[in-house]
Amino acid sequence: MPVASVKLQPGFWAERLDVNRRVSIPTLLKQFEDRGILDNFLRVSGKKQTPRKGPLYTDSDLYKWMEAVSFVLQGGEDVPLRSQLDRAIEIVAAAQGSDGYINTFYNAERSGERHTNMKGGHELYCGGHLIQAGIAYYRATGSRRLLDIGVRFADYLLSNFGPSKKPIFEGHPEMELALVELYRTTGKREYLDFAGYLLRGDSARIPLAQRDLVYLFTGKPFTERTKFEGHAVRAMYAASGATDYYLETADAEFWDTLQRLWKDAAEGKTYITGGVGSRSVGEAFGEPYELPNQLAYTESCAAIAYMMWNFRMLAATGEARFADQMERALYNGVNSGMSLSGDMYCYRNPLELTGNPEDKIRNPWYDTTCCPPNLERVLASLPGYMYGTSKDGVLVHLYHSSDVEAKLWDGSTVKLRQETKYPWDGDVAITVGTAKEFALSLRVPAWAGGAVVEVNGKALPERARPESYYRISRAWATGDTVRLRLEMKPRFTSANPRVRDNIGKVALERGPLVYCLEGVDQKVPFWEAAVIPGGPVAEFRHSLPGNPVALRAKGVVRESGGELYSPVRKPGAGKSAELVFIPYYAFQNRGATPMQVWVPYSQQ
Amino acid sequence: MPVASVKLQPGFWAERLDVNRRVSIPTLLKQFEDRGILDNFLRVSGKKQTPRKGPLYTDSDLYKWMEAVSFVLQGGEDVPLRSQLDRAIEIVAAAQGSDGYINTFYNAERSGERHTNMKGGHELYCGGHLIQAGIAYYRATGSRRLLDIGVRFADYLLSNFGPSKKPIFEGHPEMELALVELYRTTGKREYLDFAGYLLRGDSARIPLAQRDLVYLFTGKPFTERTKFEGHAVRAMYAASGATDYYLETADAEFWDTLQRLWKDAAEGKTYITGGVGSRSVGEAFGEPYELPNQLAYTESCAAIAYMMWNFRMLAATGEARFADQMERALYNGVNSGMSLSGDMYCYRNPLELTGNPEDKIRNPWYDTTCCPPNLERVLASLPGYMYGTSKDGVLVHLYHSSDVEAKLWDGSTVKLRQETKYPWDGDVAITVGTAKEFALSLRVPAWAGGAVVEVNGKALPERARPESYYRISRAWATGDTVRLRLEMKPRFTSANPRVRDNIGKVALERGPLVYCLEGVDQKVPFWEAAVIPGGPVAEFRHSLPGNPVALRAKGVVRESGGELYSPVRKPGAGKSAELVFIPYYAFQNRGATPMQVWVPYSQQ
Repeated sequence: MPVASVKLQPGFWAERLDVNRRVSIPTLLKQFEDRGILDNFLRVSGKKQTPRKGPLYTDSDLYKWMEAVSFVLQGGEDVPLRSQLDRAIEIVAAAQGSDGYINTFYNAERSGERHTNMKGGHELYCGGHLIQAGIAYYRATGSRRLLDIGVRFADYLLSNFGPSKKPIFEGHPEMELALVELYRTTGKREYLDFAGYLLRGDSARIPLAQRDLVYLFTGKPFTERTKFEGHAVRAMYAASGATDYYLETADAEFWDTLQRLWKDAAEGKTYITGGVGSRSVGEAFGEPYELPNQLAYTESCAAIAYMMWNFRMLAATGEARFADQMERALYNGVNSGMSLSGDMYCYRNPLELTGNPEDKIRNPWYDTTCCPPNLERVLASLPGYMYGTSKDGVLVHLYHSSDVEAKLWDGSTVKLRQETKYPWDGDVAITVGTAKEFALSLRVPAWAGGAVVEVNGKALPERARPESYYRISRAWATGDTVRLRLEMKPRFTSANPRVRDNIGKVALERGPLVYCLEGVDQKVPFWEAAVIPGGPVAEFRHSLPGNPVALRAKGVVRESGGELYSPVRKPGAGKSAELVFIPYYAFQNRGATPMQVWVPYSQQ
Repeated sequence: MPVASVKLQPGFWAERLDVNRRVSIPTLLKQFEDRGILDNFLRVSGKKQTPRKGPLYTDSDLYKWMEAVSFVLQGGEDVPLRSQLDRAIEIVAAAQGSDGYINTFYNAERSGERHTNMKGGHELYCGGHLIQAGIAYYRATGSRRLLDIGVRFADYLLSNFGPSKKPIFEGHPEMELALVELYRTTGKREYLDFAGYLLRGDSARIPLAQRDLVYLFTGKPFTERTKFEGHAVRAMYAASGATDYYLETADAEFWDTLQRLWKDAAEGKTYITGGVGSRSVGEAFGEPYELPNQLAYTESCAAIAYMMWNFRMLAATGEARFADQMERALYNGVNSGMSLSGDMYCYRNPLELTGNPEDKIRNPWYDTTCCPPNLERVLASLPGYMYGTSKDGVLVHLYHSSDVEAKLWDGSTVKLRQETKYPWDGDVAITVGTAKEFALSLRVPAWAGGAVVEVNGKALPERARPESYYRISRAWATGDTVRLRLEMKPRFTSANPRVRDNIGKVALERGPLVYCLEGVDQKVPFWEAAVIPGGPVAEFRHSLPGNPVALRAKGVVRESGGELYSPVRKPGAGKSAELVFIPYYAFQNRGATPMQVWVPYSQQ
């Protein structure tokens, strides 16, 4: 669904998107200017004499920012942002070679080194982000100015590399995503075929060491993959690109692989926050069930990629399980990546912190600043994730007050208005704005037992099954209303016993939100507290920005000695305690303090 | 106490030392020969045309092996080992330059690069191991042949570097240990002073980046250290060397630092196995209480260094708490490092394994093969750790059947015979072989409540306090017997609640041994089992080599669904189960199987 078709009304995400537009996006551009990321382009076009700045992939950071701005513009005019973006586009345009090649690292003194470091050079990765930005800008403005830069780079690739030309592979998957979208935008089949060529890269083309095959998640045919391993963002981008490719080709072999990989991720390698990539070494996947809390790497980009991938799997199937994973990542592991103020970012999103001030989990800048613009573009594009269309109707994937004009597959348009305070409240009201026969499918999340659906005030007889779409197909009249009531009771969740870090612990969730304890909110010793599941949980509005629903749960505190190891004691009664939970995404917005998602629980 | 003064009788360590001598030491020499580690020396002396092999610190591996053989020879003649060692000594000797410099990496084409890479070059590190080997060989044989090579290298350093000469620092602490021992061996004060110079290295001498100061644990005065951080082996070697320096200088500032550091390690950064260095990244210490089980790095060399350091702290104080840590590391985190067969080694010693065959925790060879010869030398030198002398008597630090001739500080000799089946049994009998007035101090470990001491069959009235030395000062007659009975009841241990990985889990210990569960021994599903502390624990002899005492504990098994996350359920009764524990040191001697030290426990 195009971003432009969905107009967010005030609510949870509208606030975040507003901060994104007003604070995050302009602040990051300032950072790019201060740190020479734009100068890198001026240097190539000869307009500035300056050494090249930053790691070799900084172009992609600017392109992601451009895509973020373009998504903002898709949602409505923003004169200052438009003019900043247009200026940046001209700076980029001037740096493109006459052959279509563009990359500020492999230019000037390094022109001779192009495509010599396919593993680490990120040339296709940067180019992919350029193409995506161009498509988003084109959709926002109708102008091909940025798109054509990307098209020229894509055509440069097609004319130099491929099956009957020079071999190439991506050291960091991303280009396949861009090429499939470019095919959708231009209709030129060669782009899709080149995406397939990249996804089928094998050792006959470029021989790679086993460790590179693992780390890069490329270099052997995607369809030979049986599990996630190596660099999490690379692997998730590859899976996303492969799903896009499958969506356009219906290649069954790809689908088999994607299903297998999804099971691998969702059933053993995904944090409760939707974060993926457990290991700091290589920013990588671990073994199944290797999900350490404190040492969780869970890069923001990886959670974003997991969300993007599940969105594509949802598009391929209409199955609610994918939407559940998408929502889990969005509200938690993605959402945590940007501070409430909008100008600090997480690279890592751990599930536990000791409160060490040296941790510096939220920062305004990273030398490898992939996450900040990625968070900005995913937030700005969020309206596009909320609805979908099927052959005969509209699907509601995410709940948020909004007006939508959905273009059905037959070309007709359906207007809907959605009103809700989700995720703070489980009541959703949808008013039909177009008299027409179509199917309205409402997502019932896996956690929502006892959901009820009404049409025009009358409960429907069919039960709303969790983890499904509730489909209501009828001839709608203008003003018809549908109400969905989702149970928002806080719930304690346990992990599979193979996740050894979570033995004897529970997580508290409410709706799509995962909660956490922060030391700063507690009146009892943080490390000696345990929750008592089954006890009543009280809800209240916290003073944090956005006034999230916080939770007070009953707990117990048992004094422990200071020893590192001591004989097991029979558990004493302990003192009753009240523990305050806030949504995980809001962690460490008030300075360094201990935090944990998985909290010890006492069976008393 | 010199290794030669203690003759081990059959028992736990005698078996391990025998395997070390018969299997480990000869097998490793074969590896060195096959992999060109000896050829590196022949290359420098011009006897072989061959490229240099292995990482730049391989010389130290050979030197550690030489020290191991020398310790074996201190315990008694071994003709084949002696001749292999003598051959190796001649190969090393021929590679020394006329200026005393010796290092096979910084020779030939790299002669000009000496001391240009002080952070990573390992030249002093290798030299330190050479000196230690020379001292051990000298003590074993009376020959100065190898010692003099080390002395020449030390003198080369002294004449080129130091306060009024060129500045130098160690990228890997080790040389200070060697120099203090060389001072003890030769009486030359300059060696001790140079050790002090190394330990006091500061930024005025060599400026280092903050991350290097952390990682290298050098480059700023040792006395400015307040916590362990960075590379665990480096940090522990520095602490060991600083303790040696303190033992010879009584420098109070060093002692303050050492006490502070010891608290930091023992109270928050040591695994129950005595392993240290939690993090794989940088083989480094983590934050206090950061002690993950599956991801534990806990290099064998780090556990060895922790043991060596505590031995030195014990020598400085006579305090039992240091002996407890030493014993904890020795029996568990060090002992685990060598397979029962003696030809496989751990680099990492994790406390939990999933059973993934790709883990490959035990291997016959590592390119960085620091651990194998380190394990060999520490085992071969073990008799020297068992007893100590005070001004007026003998201390028994470790229990093992043995005959000792202890030289007291007044020059007189005391003979003792110790008989015990420790650690399988807690009964220790000591027979005095010399009529003389002296104090016999028996270590009572921290875990030994209710220990009883008898002299000539009569219980002594004074209670044996855990974590102390029980001192019996009297005029002994030949044939007097002392019996110590240590309670060997298996015990369940819990961790400080700040160790978040161990919440809801217990470890099972018996005597000095930490136990673990291995999948291969269980009749119930490994991941769904929990122990019930407080239940009876049965002891039996396991069929593993050495027939260790294994333990059968009562447990419970509760079926779990396959989901990664699911609603918390009220605990059902579960099925009773019997869980089989083996000593941790014996883990993964039967192929890949899941293993865990910290086991979920059920309060039912």
